[in-house]
Amino acid sequence: MTAALVVASNRGPITFDEDGMPRRGSGGLVPALRGALAHTKATWIAAAISPGDRARSGMVADAVEGASVRLLDIPPEEFGPYYNRLANRVLWFVHHYLFDAPRTPVYDQADDEAWDAYRSVNRRFAEAIAEEAAEGATVLVQDYHLAVVPPMLRALRPDVAIGHFWHIPFAGPDYLRLLPDSWNRELMEGLLGADLVGLQTKRWASAFAACARSTLGASASERRVVRDERTVKIGVFPIGVNPDDLAEAAASPDVRAAREALKRWLGDRTLVLRVDRTELSKNVLRGLLAYEELLSRRPDLAERIVHLALLQPSRHDVPEYRVYTEECVALAARIEERFGPDVLRLEISDDYARTLAAYTLYDVLVVNPVFDGMNLVAREGPVLNRRDGVLVLSRNAGAFEELGSAAIGVNPFDVAETTAAIATAVDLPASERKERAKRLRRAARGKTPGRWLDAQLKALR
Amino acid sequence: MTAALVVASNRGPITFDEDGMPRRGSGGLVPALRGALAHTKATWIAAAISPGDRARSGMVADAVEGASVRLLDIPPEEFGPYYNRLANRVLWFVHHYLFDAPRTPVYDQADDEAWDAYRSVNRRFAEAIAEEAAEGATVLVQDYHLAVVPPMLRALRPDVAIGHFWHIPFAGPDYLRLLPDSWNRELMEGLLGADLVGLQTKRWASAFAACARSTLGASASERRVVRDERTVKIGVFPIGVNPDDLAEAAASPDVRAAREALKRWLGDRTLVLRVDRTELSKNVLRGLLAYEELLSRRPDLAERIVHLALLQPSRHDVPEYRVYTEECVALAARIEERFGPDVLRLEISDDYARTLAAYTLYDVLVVNPVFDGMNLVAREGPVLNRRDGVLVLSRNAGAFEELGSAAIGVNPFDVAETTAAIATAVDLPASERKERAKRLRRAARGKTPGRWLDAQLKALR
Repeated sequence: MTAALVVASNRGPITFDEDGMPRRGSGGLVPALRGALAHTKATWIAAAISPGDRARSGMVADAVEGASVRLLDIPPEEFGPYYNRLANRVLWFVHHYLFDAPRTPVYDQADDEAWDAYRSVNRRFAEAIAEEAAEGATVLVQDYHLAVVPPMLRALRPDVAIGHFWHIPFAGPDYLRLLPDSWNRELMEGLLGADLVGLQTKRWASAFAACARSTLGASASERRVVRDERTVKIGVFPIGVNPDDLAEAAASPDVRAAREALKRWLGDRTLVLRVDRTELSKNVLRGLLAYEELLSRRPDLAERIVHLALLQPSRHDVPEYRVYTEECVALAARIEERFGPDVLRLEISDDYARTLAAYTLYDVLVVNPVFDGMNLVAREGPVLNRRDGVLVLSRNAGAFEELGSAAIGVNPFDVAETTAAIATAVDLPASERKERAKRLRRAARGKTPGRWLDAQLKALR
Repeated sequence: MTAALVVASNRGPITFDEDGMPRRGSGGLVPALRGALAHTKATWIAAAISPGDRARSGMVADAVEGASVRLLDIPPEEFGPYYNRLANRVLWFVHHYLFDAPRTPVYDQADDEAWDAYRSVNRRFAEAIAEEAAEGATVLVQDYHLAVVPPMLRALRPDVAIGHFWHIPFAGPDYLRLLPDSWNRELMEGLLGADLVGLQTKRWASAFAACARSTLGASASERRVVRDERTVKIGVFPIGVNPDDLAEAAASPDVRAAREALKRWLGDRTLVLRVDRTELSKNVLRGLLAYEELLSRRPDLAERIVHLALLQPSRHDVPEYRVYTEECVALAARIEERFGPDVLRLEISDDYARTLAAYTLYDVLVVNPVFDGMNLVAREGPVLNRRDGVLVLSRNAGAFEELGSAAIGVNPFDVAETTAAIATAVDLPASERKERAKRLRRAARGKTPGRWLDAQLKALR
């Protein structure tokens, strides 16, 4: 009971390899929060993921820039159902509208067990937070993995102030009913156990309020939910990136080398880039279809353009992801067959240096998720790019609220519009590229993780 | 320009066969509106569907109980894209949440042409209405086929009062964005060209208001939308069935014969019935899965229960429907293979007499659509049933708002809950069956088409 601030998230800011050596965590949340903690004394509680983590579970003092880290050792037979099945297959799917509703989901007994495991892992987090939090501490619970922590924690520690930040989109009330009713209710009651529920944009906040009304019959606006005489604040806190961290990382010898290699490969061709995890919500398929359509409509471009799709492997324990990745690879092969091997390069690997290097070099960055809570690629790219690159951005990405006016917006389901947007981006006169890139940089640099954190702490006071 | 009331719908109240003989129209809307027009002087405008219709397109006086019918001859090359592609594949899918969003929809040029055809057919309707409507007439435009009629009609005839009734669910604003932005806007502007937009339930009205805010930035509550200084009323008008018509139809010799045949086949077994079109929204697959699970958990039932699934063929021009129907047939075959040929009978045919006969005989009626504007099977069944049959009803059917408390409610995505609900229904003591059936009958008979029509006319005055 010593930490004035406790952050809890599934994945921690560092992970340890088998030799006990620390590595940075991956995923959008980790870099964001890591920056945010730089100026606050805090304890971060996360699940032990790697065998190296599990060997070091327990307290690790001063592990990340002044923040202590405690990794929770969760039995694999509990972690798997909680993480792969319930969080990433059910909750992620429902909040990104990824189901094929006439056929999926079909819940079976393994799902019931996964929900029990989800609850149990959330309880482990609640108990660990209760142990670490100082009297009257502030607790920031992160994301859809830990939705039912708040009431558990409140029962153990009524003295602490609880914020929950939901990083992904929030489904509308009708679609949320794809969850079994009891889970739906427990999820909403879980989040509303907090004092403050934070979301990335007004749009997701509005959906959250609609779900509070629909599922619980609560009285809810986009600003607050009133239920059982408790008032829960709803706040919009768009998460951003730390430009200084990014610049520092991009200045490393690794990135410089990767940049040189990419430049040699690229030559004087125009680079259309995408950077994503191999994730059903990222809409790689329609992005590739739009590029194929562009080549077909504009034979003049085929010689002087190349599309680099850098895809980080993601969630290969989930069958839907393996199938989707195979579909992306097959479509890329078809495009290469139609238009030659030089028009497209799809790489499935986790090469952070190459990604940062590619950011500096793109002429067009395509970010077209079907739905996305925020999307940090749309911020990182413009911060690092040195070519006045144009951003083609889905209107369903949270980032669109701030970056949309400087980007070329697309409806991610509309391949024809996406094709036209890439063509517009490629053809844009230098002066307009420059002007848009300047506005993009400014908007993309605007919301640092530190400000994101401060705004939540202020709202919780 | 003679009709004080004009009704416009894609499908008319009658259709003509090749010999010019009239037949009743099918679909839920037609019987509902046919009853409603019995006491009002009106002209009904609809598309000519059959070759017989097309031969008789033009004015048919006194065709249906005092209402004149005018069938519009729409060129097949326009009707196909309008009806099969745009209305039934795009609009139906989006409002019932039927897409597999990571992959579909992908719009292509044929879809753009279909949207043009949709607009063009809507214009034909608007022009025909403008010709028929008397000065200051009331016009009731029906359903998702004719969403953009209102502003076209208003431009031609500013003197008429326009109601639009939307028979199907209304998608939430995020899901509505699966439409290309321009269609989304045109659709919402189309509906808001009316003076009154009617929906089946408060839930769909709330979604419609949310879409008006999200798509058009309108100021909207569940009662009205204000935009460009015009106020459009939103009304909730649950559609019902005419118990007298149903009783009359059920008393016919055809139905009596069908009833005797079904009784002989049924013997003393318990009848679990479903009646649906072969429609992706009807959730036949999960209904069959629930029945399979019931047989597996309750071997005692296999000998004394039978599931009759009466499926009317629907939209076999749409590939998704053929695939879905095949999946249903394959699943039924698997169940018969596992539990014997006597536990299940899946029939794909359009036998109205057999359907009415089955209504009188069921012990359990399963109505579990993933989403459904109202669902008239849930009303027709209880009105005709003579065995105190129990209704298992999806909470996502509009009918649930009025019938839910007397039915056994299910989340249609939750197969385990559906299994349990059918088991509960089968096991229900006679006294509770009787009491529930009585309340069901009362609720199911409550909303006649006449009252539905009157309420809209009153709201338009």
